[in-house]
Amino acid sequence: MRTLLLAASAALALALPLAAQEAAKPAALAPSEIVAAAPKADWVAIPAEDLLMMTLAPDAEGKPRQVVIQLMPAPFSQGWVHNIRLFARAKWYDGISVNRVQDNYVTQWGDPNYDNPEATGKPKPLPEGLKVMGEAEYSARVEHTMLVGGNRYDPNPVGHDPEVSHLTRGDRYAPATGFVSGWPVGANLDRGKFSNRDLRRDPQLEIKSVWPTHCYGMVGVGRNYSPDTGSGAELYTVIGHAPRHLDRNIALVGRVIEGMEHLSSLPRGSGALGFYTAEEASKRTAITSVRVVNDLPTNEQPRFEYLSTESATFAAYAEAIANRRDPFFITPAGGADICNIRVPMRRAAE
Amino acid sequence: MRTLLLAASAALALALPLAAQEAAKPAALAPSEIVAAAPKADWVAIPAEDLLMMTLAPDAEGKPRQVVIQLMPAPFSQGWVHNIRLFARAKWYDGISVNRVQDNYVTQWGDPNYDNPEATGKPKPLPEGLKVMGEAEYSARVEHTMLVGGNRYDPNPVGHDPEVSHLTRGDRYAPATGFVSGWPVGANLDRGKFSNRDLRRDPQLEIKSVWPTHCYGMVGVGRNYSPDTGSGAELYTVIGHAPRHLDRNIALVGRVIEGMEHLSSLPRGSGALGFYTAEEASKRTAITSVRVVNDLPTNEQPRFEYLSTESATFAAYAEAIANRRDPFFITPAGGADICNIRVPMRRAAE
Repeated sequence: MRTLLLAASAALALALPLAAQEAAKPAALAPSEIVAAAPKADWVAIPAEDLLMMTLAPDAEGKPRQVVIQLMPAPFSQGWVHNIRLFARAKWYDGISVNRVQDNYVTQWGDPNYDNPEATGKPKPLPEGLKVMGEAEYSARVEHTMLVGGNRYDPNPVGHDPEVSHLTRGDRYAPATGFVSGWPVGANLDRGKFSNRDLRRDPQLEIKSVWPTHCYGMVGVGRNYSPDTGSGAELYTVIGHAPRHLDRNIALVGRVIEGMEHLSSLPRGSGALGFYTAEEASKRTAITSVRVVNDLPTNEQPRFEYLSTESATFAAYAEAIANRRDPFFITPAGGADICNIRVPMRRAAE
Repeated sequence: MRTLLLAASAALALALPLAAQEAAKPAALAPSEIVAAAPKADWVAIPAEDLLMMTLAPDAEGKPRQVVIQLMPAPFSQGWVHNIRLFARAKWYDGISVNRVQDNYVTQWGDPNYDNPEATGKPKPLPEGLKVMGEAEYSARVEHTMLVGGNRYDPNPVGHDPEVSHLTRGDRYAPATGFVSGWPVGANLDRGKFSNRDLRRDPQLEIKSVWPTHCYGMVGVGRNYSPDTGSGAELYTVIGHAPRHLDRNIALVGRVIEGMEHLSSLPRGSGALGFYTAEEASKRTAITSVRVVNDLPTNEQPRFEYLSTESATFAAYAEAIANRRDPFFITPAGGADICNIRVPMRRAAE
């Protein structure tokens, strides 16, 4: 019986029980199987203070819709993250809506009367205590960071030389790409301090500046023209091919780790930039509430953990994504885009 | 008045009237403005024989849903393209459905009873005359091809040296990337014949093999395990970050050029690999008909054209995407992913 029409992406296959995957014994482990075999110690708990529970109005069938967002840890975007917790605790987000859904780009939510070409009322006053961030904060300085990835142009291809497998040379948008504390990043290497040969030999790099990358599901802060950097009142998530040209141009503050389908499958807006027009106001999805998970009663707090990007399991997982050897594949790519190496995420066992 | 919360992606902004874009006079042309100023001669008509009109059942509000697919020209995937026209002319696709929607991956349509883990009936017999393709056909041989793109790691950055601006060095998935007759491709260069220096100096390259890339909206052919290559009875389109690891592993046959939102915003399936479960059978979107546009009455044939990827306008457009200078941007990327340089497409003037 043939049941596999098109192989699942590694990251999404993670959400499936193994029994639902191929019945045939694979010739080599698929990325999802490597993750499934990870020791418990490779999983890192996400603090409840870094989780937001966003509740949307029920769908057309009356089913509840909840989206869980993980906020970034230091050293990334902490001013905006401060603001977002403040908005949530002031219940400022309660009653706002999704106002823009632009295909292959972003779903954006906020006050429908703020800065919206289709606004019909007055904007909601902002809470006190918001920080104003500078553009320099779009990047952070991170030293001694391990970057994990795969690049077919390495003279020693990923997977063939253990000394190289934790390194990547970057892509069109960044001189280096990799992962810092579970987050995909681009980086400028401090080339004054070491040569390309050093970079290949030593995965513990000193980094000049590091910034999060606009991968699918990442959450960012809408802004106006420079020097505005946005407050966090307007947020968006990426629902298409990674718009990496936005890296270092807009603050990224987190990512959707559960319920992404509630934002990605919304009807697209027909107005400019994908905003819902005034005639389409009924398509705006209401946001009932946004809560910091830490503020919920303990027994209602969802708990999540991610696969440590510093673990050997993650390195093997990234390598397997770059060199697919599971039975569906006939020509392994030899490399993988930073946004296709999705950090494995799961609900923590009770 | 501040109305721009987040800059539109270049490609999608193309669909907007210029009046809907920024009111402020830009300091430099945005990619969409470069395209808007293209001379008529830069636009290439798409043959009606290469267009499919796929009609879905009306949406929940009773609104019609039509999707236009452009099939690939020679030398790409012509065996499968033959089959797809044959399926369409046999009206075999009429009455099939969308059976799988996997977030950040694919929307897939076909016979709900063929190779579907959730099948409840017998599969539909296939028409006569189908070709069986070999895996070698996942790539094509193309000589003297112009590759256009941008790579910040070029010693002479894109946009600063006219000799280099039509070249790209590839990415994690291909030694070179670019465009052939309006289609994004990866390529293996025949390095036996010229050096890197030659590659930089001469944009007319001899190519060893070229294959289409799995960008957002591309249409491919579902298959089973190798050596099966699929017939064209099962088709999918990419609705997330480009799954480039599928390049050279599955046949690509075309792309959605209008109505993509009807496929990308469908509810995700909760079964294995995003298939709708038997309990979710009501979520399957029926495909009413698929017609080769050439077979429609002349006055009902939509006409489309694309911006020639060999034109100077396209080169300027690609360069502007790689180096955004329009007012929203503060840090140009210096490069662009092949899947972010979307080939401009428009309905032809009547």
